[in-house]
Amino acid sequence: MKITVVRAILEANERIADLNRQLFDQSKLYVINLMSSPGAGKTTLLEKTIDGVKKDLRVGVIEGDIQSSQDAERIARKGVPVVQINTGGACHLDGNMIRETFHEFNFDELDLLVVENVGNLVCPAEFRVGEDMKVMILSVAEGDDKPQKYPLMFRESKALLINKIDLLPYVDCSLEKIREDSLRINPDLRIFEVSCKTGEGLEEWFGWLKERVKEGRLG
Amino acid sequence: MKITVVRAILEANERIADLNRQLFDQSKLYVINLMSSPGAGKTTLLEKTIDGVKKDLRVGVIEGDIQSSQDAERIARKGVPVVQINTGGACHLDGNMIRETFHEFNFDELDLLVVENVGNLVCPAEFRVGEDMKVMILSVAEGDDKPQKYPLMFRESKALLINKIDLLPYVDCSLEKIREDSLRINPDLRIFEVSCKTGEGLEEWFGWLKERVKEGRLG
Repeated sequence: MKITVVRAILEANERIADLNRQLFDQSKLYVINLMSSPGAGKTTLLEKTIDGVKKDLRVGVIEGDIQSSQDAERIARKGVPVVQINTGGACHLDGNMIRETFHEFNFDELDLLVVENVGNLVCPAEFRVGEDMKVMILSVAEGDDKPQKYPLMFRESKALLINKIDLLPYVDCSLEKIREDSLRINPDLRIFEVSCKTGEGLEEWFGWLKERVKEGRLG
Repeated sequence: MKITVVRAILEANERIADLNRQLFDQSKLYVINLMSSPGAGKTTLLEKTIDGVKKDLRVGVIEGDIQSSQDAERIARKGVPVVQINTGGACHLDGNMIRETFHEFNFDELDLLVVENVGNLVCPAEFRVGEDMKVMILSVAEGDDKPQKYPLMFRESKALLINKIDLLPYVDCSLEKIREDSLRINPDLRIFEVSCKTGEGLEEWFGWLKERVKEGRLG
């Protein structure tokens, strides 16, 4: 019974996500659904990424949080269009929520739209919003058992950024184990080892992202 | 419509949680619902806590994970009864899931049952399992904006353990801000600053926990 209800909600969401996707395609807008646990560093990565690609890409942002608008305020300081969604309790964004922000943007003036999802390693991976790719962040402070324990997000993502590698000397976390277990779940996963604090690894991520957007908008 | 469905599920869960609670009370069993983001340190805290209270309390554990049984295996090595629940995708435990483990325990031989919830800072706080109190962990690596962004869990918890304080020199996180924002949301919240790695602060937590269990079982 419960399963039926959940399935109906997921199917309704798929239809809306498809509509969103049509609209993005019309505007040749590349869309990323950015996901992680709370505190893995989504907003900081996004700030760095905006700086890192702004010469080449016009970026817009949708910020998803249960409540508060502090993330949108941080992004607004970067001078890019941003809309905050407050889910009011819901633990993930869905197609409909992001659809309600569309009138706030002029998609023809953007190349890349990043949807920063609610901090949650589980549910966001189940609800497509119409994105071209899902990208996830894992902080080394979370430990190296996360691929085994939360496999869906690793399976659904095109890229994994292992963040806060500057903390590696102080935490029990094996990058090798994260790599191995992630690639067993998703052999095509592109993995970046980064520190938003020191900047290590970020250039490689910027370069790859710019390539993806270019290919996606041509395709 | 969606809201109605969700409310019906929550109400059904409340009824089951009440039934669980009656059973716990009959056995004079004190029950904790332990919650946090992925990787904040629930299982490690639990290992330390079992060692720290075992002279005074007989502990049992229910491990909740989406999949895998590695946490239950870690706890089993401590020589206490443990049952693993795999939610198969669901991002939280509910009253019914933990009810299905009851035949695996002899509650009359236990003083304290700890239910380690799925790693998620959102949904577990909405689903009571019949516990005497909710306890949450926040790792300093997650940052100090979490009370503002995920207030429900801070509001519902009796105790907050701020964990991994050994990492404070290496992360941008103000304990003072966490304290202030948490207490604004929940003035009765008992806050412990701990490091499961160095052991700092744990004795205070063990002592407080033992007091709560003693009072709970007398009451």
